Amino acid sequence: MVLQARPLRLSTADAGFEAAFEARLHWSADTDAQVEQAVTDILEAVRKRGDEAVLEFTRRFDRLQAPSMAALELKPAELKAAFESLPAAQRSALETAAARVRSYHEAQKQANGQGWSYRDADGTLLGQKVTPLDRVGIYVPGGKAAYPSSVLMNAIPAHVAGVGEIIMVVPTPGGEKNPLVLAAAHVGGVHRAFTVGGAQAIGALAYGTKTVPRVDKITGPGNAYVASAKRRVFGLVGIDMIAGPSEILVLADGSTPADWVAMDLFSQAEHDELAQSILLCPDAGYIDRVQQEIDRLLPEMPRAEIIARSLSGRGALIRTRDMAQACEISNRIAPEHLEIASTEPHRWEPLLKHAGAIFLGGYTSESLGDYCAGPNHVLPTSSTARFSSPLGVYDFQKRSSLIEVSEAGAQSLGRVAATLAHGEGLQAHARAAEMRIKP
Amino acid sequence: MVLQARPLRLSTADAGFEAAFEARLHWSADTDAQVEQAVTDILEAVRKRGDEAVLEFTRRFDRLQAPSMAALELKPAELKAAFESLPAAQRSALETAAARVRSYHEAQKQANGQGWSYRDADGTLLGQKVTPLDRVGIYVPGGKAAYPSSVLMNAIPAHVAGVGEIIMVVPTPGGEKNPLVLAAAHVGGVHRAFTVGGAQAIGALAYGTKTVPRVDKITGPGNAYVASAKRRVFGLVGIDMIAGPSEILVLADGSTPADWVAMDLFSQAEHDELAQSILLCPDAGYIDRVQQEIDRLLPEMPRAEIIARSLSGRGALIRTRDMAQACEISNRIAPEHLEIASTEPHRWEPLLKHAGAIFLGGYTSESLGDYCAGPNHVLPTSSTARFSSPLGVYDFQKRSSLIEVSEAGAQSLGRVAATLAHGEGLQAHARAAEMRIKP
Repeated sequence: MVLQARPLRLSTADAGFEAAFEARLHWSADTDAQVEQAVTDILEAVRKRGDEAVLEFTRRFDRLQAPSMAALELKPAELKAAFESLPAAQRSALETAAARVRSYHEAQKQANGQGWSYRDADGTLLGQKVTPLDRVGIYVPGGKAAYPSSVLMNAIPAHVAGVGEIIMVVPTPGGEKNPLVLAAAHVGGVHRAFTVGGAQAIGALAYGTKTVPRVDKITGPGNAYVASAKRRVFGLVGIDMIAGPSEILVLADGSTPADWVAMDLFSQAEHDELAQSILLCPDAGYIDRVQQEIDRLLPEMPRAEIIARSLSGRGALIRTRDMAQACEISNRIAPEHLEIASTEPHRWEPLLKHAGAIFLGGYTSESLGDYCAGPNHVLPTSSTARFSSPLGVYDFQKRSSLIEVSEAGAQSLGRVAATLAHGEGLQAHARAAEMRIKP
Repeated sequence: MVLQARPLRLSTADAGFEAAFEARLHWSADTDAQVEQAVTDILEAVRKRGDEAVLEFTRRFDRLQAPSMAALELKPAELKAAFESLPAAQRSALETAAARVRSYHEAQKQANGQGWSYRDADGTLLGQKVTPLDRVGIYVPGGKAAYPSSVLMNAIPAHVAGVGEIIMVVPTPGGEKNPLVLAAAHVGGVHRAFTVGGAQAIGALAYGTKTVPRVDKITGPGNAYVASAKRRVFGLVGIDMIAGPSEILVLADGSTPADWVAMDLFSQAEHDELAQSILLCPDAGYIDRVQQEIDRLLPEMPRAEIIARSLSGRGALIRTRDMAQACEISNRIAPEHLEIASTEPHRWEPLLKHAGAIFLGGYTSESLGDYCAGPNHVLPTSSTARFSSPLGVYDFQKRSSLIEVSEAGAQSLGRVAATLAHGEGLQAHARAAEMRIKP
């Protein structure tokens, strides 16, 4: 049988467009009761029995025997050796990517991550100070979705923020280590690393064990067990976000070579059969050409089967009235990755309100952003770009308000505060303000 | 029986200090299985049956009959009328507080909430744009903890961020409306308001109903049902944080009048018997004087019983070796409110790493910050200042990365991306980059 990748063809002019569009977008992160119960039990065991429980689950789930948690620590020398064992091209690519990611996040910190303050006329000082988190944990998936680039994308913003200690956890099922992941930990400035994973790794980081120090925040993607565990420890520690399947949306005016756009759709689809690739374009002829390129290029792809399943099951090629309507639909989707495959990307960008990352112009393939352009590739999925942001330096910093009321300020503010506090029935609040007012 | 407020007296020099200190800090937000089950059922009903379910739960839990959800909407004219019915002093205090909160958050947006970008030498553009959320929901508790100041503290940063629609929900048990809360909604710029509360209000905001539009993020404190519901809808919508009991920590060098400090401890304790008030001071004589002022002032306080229970059950007066040690202990606590009752607040402030808000100098009572200094009073509790920040304009904005790779940039970046993508076994990513490289 010949593999076929046939994204759903839609036109906004069709009568049934709304229903078909909604059905195609629908994705539900239903929680699985069995996963939830397993995670409850694992977290409870790790909280109570620490290292011993982590070792036990690692034996059971990762088929990895270890005499102690200490034996599961990857020492800096091992990370460095992994880096040095790589072919020169990979070493250099990792270093170039890391340097660019670092520069971008330094610019981000400079632009939006600094403290500020001002004084009122009466001398009262108001502001905020910005400080790094003390210690963070980075979860790195093992097995088939082991991405060294994700190690860089999590570790480097933490490093730039000034986090004191960055601890990586990565499962190594059967004891098999991925040298690129270890090398990326070296390049990314990870301070300590343990070969544990799953809900037990999240528990170790959140509660702390004798060997694994307790962290303040946990970032990084994982499977359903990891996602559930992160959701449960949220509040005790910070977490980044709960990631869903990856998505790309391409807005095309027909000016970018159709094979480039086809390959960009593939590059999302090859992640996972649940990944979603959508093209929005006012030009029906161009949409035909993209489909032809899909058909032509598919057989060349090593991951053709996943691509075909993803594109046929969740992909869509949508003809819009014009580019402005394509932008409106993009805002409804709030995609993780948004390419503007147009000669006028800056004409359309201001119309785009919700997206994790916007790739402007035909030369900006999503894959350049995924690896080395500089911006973070950890982005809000499943429409959460409506309210959340790419992972950044700000995820590894927190703010404290600064307030220094002058003697004069205490006179005027004290009266206002006392009036409101009395209105709320909080008399001690009122008295504390009144005591500072001179008779 | 005479009421007594006797915070635990500790000294860091005592042999048993560590254990006693840890025991006093301990607070556990254990989830209650009954609450969890009730919330699951309520959310499911609201998701499936919308307005009808919300009306049903409002009847049951708030003893409030209404023919339709529309009948539970507070119209702008009613909010305005509530404001106009207030005594002049309250009207003016609300307006002054709102104006100061607005200026502070405008400064915050100016300092840290703007987009930025830069170009590489090869013309590649990198940056981030910042956009407001489209629509947010603000939860305002009803009943005994109905605080108009919280309405301002949630609505104003959303307004300053540029949020399109701000929807307030506030339960009115038995139909009793709090005119100050309604007035604050008017002053704070709330667009729509509904008298519904509990998990059913969170469900209505997260899923949307026929009458209540679906929001992108929900902020604001609530009881255990509200907290559980917010945790469950997190991911579908954004949430701010899960608040625990309120806390104050006072670092005192002995220079601030002891009665001021005693009243500041009261102003936290009067919230709730679980609230925590702690004094850290190197001067034993001063600690004695604060206890004497506690004893003297307690009988005058309308909420003396709550204050006594809170201070005796969770309060502490801790003698430290010196101010530097007091700062170290403060960092372990990561308090929500941190007063530096000292003539040298700027000497100690740099040593303080974790706190929601820092109040510098003896004139800066926490209550001034609670109402009208300008900074937000929604702050991270229960040690979460280790990783989270005051509510701010940034909670109502999100960021999108901007990437525009030039033709020249695509040549050099393409090679790096392709090397890394091949290393990860993602050949479509590699091909997408390679296609942009000139032969």
